[in-house]
Amino acid sequence: MTRLDSAIRRLTAQRDLLDWATSRISPQGLVLELGLGNGRTYDHLRSRLPGREIYVFERSPAAHPDCIPPDPYLLVGDVFEALPRFIERFGSGCAALVHTDIGSGDEEANRQLARRLAPLLENLLQPGGLLLADRAFELACCKDISSETGVAEGRYFVYRR
Amino acid sequence: MTRLDSAIRRLTAQRDLLDWATSRISPQGLVLELGLGNGRTYDHLRSRLPGREIYVFERSPAAHPDCIPPDPYLLVGDVFEALPRFIERFGSGCAALVHTDIGSGDEEANRQLARRLAPLLENLLQPGGLLLADRAFELACCKDISSETGVAEGRYFVYRR
Ligand SMILES: C[S@@+](CC[C@H](N)C(=O)[O-])C[C@H]1O[C@@H](n2cnc3c(N)ncnc32)[C@H](O)[C@@H]1O
Ligand code: NI
Ligand code: NI
Repeated sequence: MTRLDSAIRRLTAQRDLLDWATSRISPQGLVLELGLGNGRTYDHLRSRLPGREIYVFERSPAAHPDCIPPDPYLLVGDVFEALPRFIERFGSGCAALVHTDIGSGDEEANRQLARRLAPLLENLLQPGGLLLADRAFELACCKDISSETGVAEGRYFVYRR
Repeated sequence: MTRLDSAIRRLTAQRDLLDWATSRISPQGLVLELGLGNGRTYDHLRSRLPGREIYVFERSPAAHPDCIPPDPYLLVGDVFEALPRFIERFGSGCAALVHTDIGSGDEEANRQLARRLAPLLENLLQPGGLLLADRAFELACCKDISSETGVAEGRYFVYRR
């Protein structure tokens, strides 16, 4: 498999999973996108969830201008500062769906990121809430339901609180 | 169509076209990749064309380490300096296949790039040689054969000298 094949597989898995999750999301609760990047998955989320409130967390926004969320929905800064403030504001269990894609090429850094993020994610998710992640997480009060989604194993990880 | 859909379409068109061209390439002649980027299309080209000489032109190499061409095949610098030297060295008509993907988001800059690049490309291509391009080119001695390739119209452009 070439890197071109692999990029196509990764983006296709991402799309399939966003489609899967947005068709199953509970009618109540906020949607969170961790990492705006170039705004592709945010654009997909908002097209699939018209009218839903989608909050985006990004350290250094650099997306295509069409894909920048309206002001109150873009939270600029490090997620480890922004998420605790967010939980204070909206309360534990405020989120119906969280998509996290803030990993880099550095596997050790990603592992540490996941460890630090895990308690915040558990705090955010409502019962039945879904987490989509670009890597595995250890979440005591969530169930790994990746295999229920039909997305190729190891490409993306899905948890239900 | 979301930006995620559109990215998948673009990469898929790129892969289909590289597969189309590499299965039709003439047995003689060099392969040129203008723009290494993250190395995805270079990786695909080399996997489809084992044993062929593939020259890559890149102003500022920043690809994944696995996707950096071996030293004599990576020509670092501006294509407008590197290509004339290349033609001096290997002669007119040295190339069987050229893939060019050096456009940016700036449409006016891309138009100018294409105008400056056109005479160099015509000079490089052997009779029957193929040009794959991320945008349209005006090439007096080439035929636009994009519609023969089956790739969605307007996604990619193909010319035969
Ligand atoms: C891979 S990109 C996201 C791509 C996006 N999902 C898409 O498909 O377009 C990761 C993004 O996460 C951001 N990021 C990484 N670590 C972060 C952190 N600790 N806090 C906030 N943003 C972060 C980076 O700046 C980058 O834009
Ligand atoms: Ni635009
Ligand atoms: Ni690697």
